[in-house]
Amino acid sequence: MKIGLIGLGKMGQAIAYRLSKNNFEIIAFDPKVSQIDDVENISFESSLNDVTQKTNIIWVMVPAGDITDNVIKDLSKLLKPESIVIDGGNSNFENTKKRYSLLKEKNIHLLDCGTSGGIAGKINGYSLMIGGDKEIFENTKKIFKAIAAPNGFNYMGPSGAGHYVKMIHNGIEYSLLQSYAEGFDLLKNNSNYENLDLEKISDTWLHGSVIRSWILELCKSVFNQDQELKSISGSIGENQTGRWTLKEAEKENISMKLLKEALNIRTESRQTGGNFGTKVVAMLRNKFGGHEVKKLIKN
Amino acid sequence: MKIGLIGLGKMGQAIAYRLSKNNFEIIAFDPKVSQIDDVENISFESSLNDVTQKTNIIWVMVPAGDITDNVIKDLSKLLKPESIVIDGGNSNFENTKKRYSLLKEKNIHLLDCGTSGGIAGKINGYSLMIGGDKEIFENTKKIFKAIAAPNGFNYMGPSGAGHYVKMIHNGIEYSLLQSYAEGFDLLKNNSNYENLDLEKISDTWLHGSVIRSWILELCKSVFNQDQELKSISGSIGENQTGRWTLKEAEKENISMKLLKEALNIRTESRQTGGNFGTKVVAMLRNKFGGHEVKKLIKN
Repeated sequence: MKIGLIGLGKMGQAIAYRLSKNNFEIIAFDPKVSQIDDVENISFESSLNDVTQKTNIIWVMVPAGDITDNVIKDLSKLLKPESIVIDGGNSNFENTKKRYSLLKEKNIHLLDCGTSGGIAGKINGYSLMIGGDKEIFENTKKIFKAIAAPNGFNYMGPSGAGHYVKMIHNGIEYSLLQSYAEGFDLLKNNSNYENLDLEKISDTWLHGSVIRSWILELCKSVFNQDQELKSISGSIGENQTGRWTLKEAEKENISMKLLKEALNIRTESRQTGGNFGTKVVAMLRNKFGGHEVKKLIKN
Repeated sequence: MKIGLIGLGKMGQAIAYRLSKNNFEIIAFDPKVSQIDDVENISFESSLNDVTQKTNIIWVMVPAGDITDNVIKDLSKLLKPESIVIDGGNSNFENTKKRYSLLKEKNIHLLDCGTSGGIAGKINGYSLMIGGDKEIFENTKKIFKAIAAPNGFNYMGPSGAGHYVKMIHNGIEYSLLQSYAEGFDLLKNNSNYENLDLEKISDTWLHGSVIRSWILELCKSVFNQDQELKSISGSIGENQTGRWTLKEAEKENISMKLLKEALNIRTESRQTGGNFGTKVVAMLRNKFGGHEVKKLIKN
């Protein structure tokens, strides 16, 4: 089965890898990428137009916002009726609904797919939250199955529901990261027990404790490399999904106090360079998403 | 090998079960319990004195505070030198240090053991964080191995370190529970997508997402039974460990803003009956710890 893939960044390449391992033929386009070492059965096209000449099912994996907008608009002009576009990025659900309507005018179908799992998902498979027309989802299950972890994909609801659920997933993620970070900050900097071994503690908690999780596995991996984190900044970056979640919660009169604090802490961390806890968050974001960690340059 | 076990509540019975499965002979005392159906190789004694006549290694699994204090004081009078007492409860680490010194005067050894895993630990095994004299820990590893999940026990440091690490574990747990609860509250009560399936969402997230965890498994189990939670109160109980953690953080000048919010939300929930999110937390506490959930009585 042929599938178009627009965007070959970190996540796009991981998607290509999983599709290729599951015997899809990939028709790819990214103006900056014309080779991926570990993906077979892929052709690199030089334009969107070239992709749409060869397949009418297109996975879009580009940054949220204007770039996604432009790709969707171009596809609306290039694709034939009954084509299917899947937006696997972190688009705002309101934008997704607009794009769904735009494509619907041309009788082109848009599915939205929230994609969680970070760079490790390349091997483990992803958790996929899908929105759009149920019938179109049913007809494209094979694609999601290839990309997802075993049992890791489900239909969430009408257009935008996939991105909506992913947005809230990310909101929860912000608070979870900060929750662990606060605890490790106290463990590291308490005056009662010096030199508590944060790797050993993470490892102990991973086996049988109430707070075991994949994020805790990443904590262990961070502390395995470095428990001091002296050479990095505690400045934490972010994409927009956390703020969107909080804004949506405020609109709906739902209290998300932990998320609000977690976002404030990130803002502060970028102004002050943060503390040991925010360094842990920065390292965790690097571990799961490959997000940059700023190095401190010592005089 | 014979081991004394003082306290046969939910957690004490689970410890007895694991010891029994691992071929320990249990000399038990709890004034309220004289039978446990699924534990073999156990004798029920009628006093602490009877227990100390039969073994000089005693696991104490009673509520933190005065009860633990009384048991330790009594044991200090009854046990011979070189006996070993293990406090597996949620004692405050400062009290543990005092009890350690008290017993040390009689040349009796106290290990503190933070025990995480809730009622599910009976089958899965526990995560054990152990403090005290390293040599005594080394000599009693067999006991911890029997109770722990595979690879789920480690030495943390001198007396109180086990309870200290467990206290902070609980502080993290408070924030993690509230993090998920906020997200599910918005998913449940948003006006964009009605009737999002919280069980299906939990299940999708469990397979490959960044936020997969054991607590999320419990969320799925809660929503499998009931996604409305109309018949229960959102009042969340607590033990003291969360407050201890926050107090300790403030003493050490470490910011734990998420924990502070999570604790405030619990206090408010007991005054107001809470919201959907706090109902989720109450149900999660019931799932992992067997803690009571208040039923609402409708007119």
